[in-house]
Amino acid sequence: MTSVATTRRSRITPEREAELYDAVLDLLREVGYDALTMDAVAAATHSSKATLYRQWGSKPQLVARALKHGKPGPSCAVADTGSLRGDLLETVVHAFDDSRIEQDAALMRGVGRAAHDNPELLAALRELLIEPSIAELRVLLDRAVARGEIRPDNPALDLVPHMFLGALVSGELIDGRQVTQEFLVTYLDAVLMPALRA
Amino acid sequence: MTSVATTRRSRITPEREAELYDAVLDLLREVGYDALTMDAVAAATHSSKATLYRQWGSKPQLVARALKHGKPGPSCAVADTGSLRGDLLETVVHAFDDSRIEQDAALMRGVGRAAHDNPELLAALRELLIEPSIAELRVLLDRAVARGEIRPDNPALDLVPHMFLGALVSGELIDGRQVTQEFLVTYLDAVLMPALRA
Repeated sequence: MTSVATTRRSRITPEREAELYDAVLDLLREVGYDALTMDAVAAATHSSKATLYRQWGSKPQLVARALKHGKPGPSCAVADTGSLRGDLLETVVHAFDDSRIEQDAALMRGVGRAAHDNPELLAALRELLIEPSIAELRVLLDRAVARGEIRPDNPALDLVPHMFLGALVSGELIDGRQVTQEFLVTYLDAVLMPALRA
Repeated sequence: MTSVATTRRSRITPEREAELYDAVLDLLREVGYDALTMDAVAAATHSSKATLYRQWGSKPQLVARALKHGKPGPSCAVADTGSLRGDLLETVVHAFDDSRIEQDAALMRGVGRAAHDNPELLAALRELLIEPSIAELRVLLDRAVARGEIRPDNPALDLVPHMFLGALVSGELIDGRQVTQEFLVTYLDAVLMPALRA
């Protein structure tokens, strides 16, 4: 990854990079992962396909980087409110704004579906998006352990991403409606907090 | 639904019905929901397409009924072990046998993906599979409330399906490996039990 990132930074400006990622996200929302082609990205951004491949290596890498770029809000490791509940609430509020929650969820569902059939995309998503998010969450949890809010051997420490994912994916299948920030806060108090404080 | 069920029962034997559902599940595993055609079901089961449509109404209805038929184990409402943890453990053990957990998960992921783009399939799955499963789970939870194991106003009572779903869908994305029965039991003790006993 380092060499790709170095190459990329040496050739295009951050503004140009952001513009390109925005175009990729627009295309993803429009046509979905499978139908998104490097030709379409090249056309939409007035780049050559050769440039795209040289800078990002492959479509899965480009898409994962674009999603990372579009990830909303500040890192949850940044929000240090002094309490576990405060930090988790801050994470939910920043990561899931009601005005874009469904748009973001639809984007991630589409890419998640594609990742199931595409090991390279799954690997890129895990490396660039999922593992860094889990690591950020861990910073917040480790602070709570240090404050004595969570027992260091609580097995729920490793299961916070699973709990969150359950809340995020269940709207359509279980409740037949979209997930809202209000629902996520209810879930935080009813599920995450009791499990982490056990 | 009642009229469809009545018509079906009056025309074919339970053995023939089971044979047909098994053929639908085999086809689903082989080609997935989108590529599954009523023609292929008719050919595999030596039925006419007209018969299939008369008995089941539509492909989403037929697929949802086949999945319901293939649902493993006894109803979780049946397992009355005398304790909440015992009942939930019984549910996990019966519903998720390691030898078929990945096969079942792959089938449900495929159908879940299709349901997102197909409101009729989503409605049929919710009506025939998801809502009955939630109702069964509720029987088990109500017994625990009656025994005094769960406070009647505990908000986690409505969130058990969400918690379970999180554990089931997270294997590939979060942990990069298949979900096992052992993992589900860990999750039960670390997440569901503390939330329900809070």
